[in-house]
Amino acid sequence: MLPIITISREFGSGGHSIGEAVAKELGIPFYDGEIVNRVAMESGYAKELIEEQGEHTTAGNKWFDVTAASAMYFQSPQDEIFLAQRKVILDCAAKGPCVIVGRCSDYILKTEEIPSLHILIHADMEHRIARVLQRYGEIKDVDVKKRILKKDKQRRTYYRYYTDQRWGEYQNYDLSIDSGTLGEETSVHMICELAKSMAK
Amino acid sequence: MLPIITISREFGSGGHSIGEAVAKELGIPFYDGEIVNRVAMESGYAKELIEEQGEHTTAGNKWFDVTAASAMYFQSPQDEIFLAQRKVILDCAAKGPCVIVGRCSDYILKTEEIPSLHILIHADMEHRIARVLQRYGEIKDVDVKKRILKKDKQRRTYYRYYTDQRWGEYQNYDLSIDSGTLGEETSVHMICELAKSMAK
Repeated sequence: MLPIITISREFGSGGHSIGEAVAKELGIPFYDGEIVNRVAMESGYAKELIEEQGEHTTAGNKWFDVTAASAMYFQSPQDEIFLAQRKVILDCAAKGPCVIVGRCSDYILKTEEIPSLHILIHADMEHRIARVLQRYGEIKDVDVKKRILKKDKQRRTYYRYYTDQRWGEYQNYDLSIDSGTLGEETSVHMICELAKSMAK
Repeated sequence: MLPIITISREFGSGGHSIGEAVAKELGIPFYDGEIVNRVAMESGYAKELIEEQGEHTTAGNKWFDVTAASAMYFQSPQDEIFLAQRKVILDCAAKGPCVIVGRCSDYILKTEEIPSLHILIHADMEHRIARVLQRYGEIKDVDVKKRILKKDKQRRTYYRYYTDQRWGEYQNYDLSIDSGTLGEETSVHMICELAKSMAK
């Protein structure tokens, strides 16, 4: 049987596209934005809030301002979204082989001891800037590098908060690929070949 | 043309064997212990000292006890070995496609802007203990886990000292493979396929 595949990615590294192409080639479901819809249904929160809070945490996040005492009794919307998202991810995985992008999915499946293949996609800043500009076009007055660094930081802080682990430690992945130096096509091919070999 | 391949590895992860098998399959030279012999010739230092000082640094290392003032003028044997080793690594790379294991080779080739494929091999502690026991057999009164952790620490400290970088950061590698979960055979196959695709 093909494995469940989680993709952790740096912003602008092409992790989303690579995951989508892998799912397509292997003929298995692909979950990324789809998770947001499901979490919205599960939790009742608006999609926009889930998109905002489902992978991001900033130091200035107001939910972090609760005192330790109140935090013991108070579940923030972000916590509720995390829990709903966790449930959706586990539901997706329970249905069989699939590709799941981000959202601490590697950690969530590991803690539940669900066998899966954990992939990290990264690239150097030069490649990521070029990719973001190609995908979203140039935006006036927006420093692309700053935007990339901020997005990474938000995701890392979120990951750190909910997993108590540092994001991007090589020990957490079966395979880490530099999509900048190796290219997206090669990255997709490597992951598919690996998944197929595991299915034998 | 096939690429120059550097292999960085955790102790007990099978990185040496994987590198050797890759070199054999690709029909290119393999440099690991061989480097020690060449450094001995270049530097005049004994092989035993090079083996000890060529990848290891401990906090208690006497060469680190020199004061800042004397360090400015005094090149320690460890520094001399590093420089001789660096030269040998660059000489190996200059001859063409090959596999080089450890010894900051990834960093040395990068700083000289020599195009190469940088691979990290790692595995969880359970796999590494099993591998070390299988390779070296059980040694009375030796805690294998402690030995692995110590060896990793020495190599990391050495790497940190000579490269000013943290060892094992995913950004430094084109590909990082968990040889414990994926297996040595798959690891060798993936690296060879990737090297061959780059040669096209």
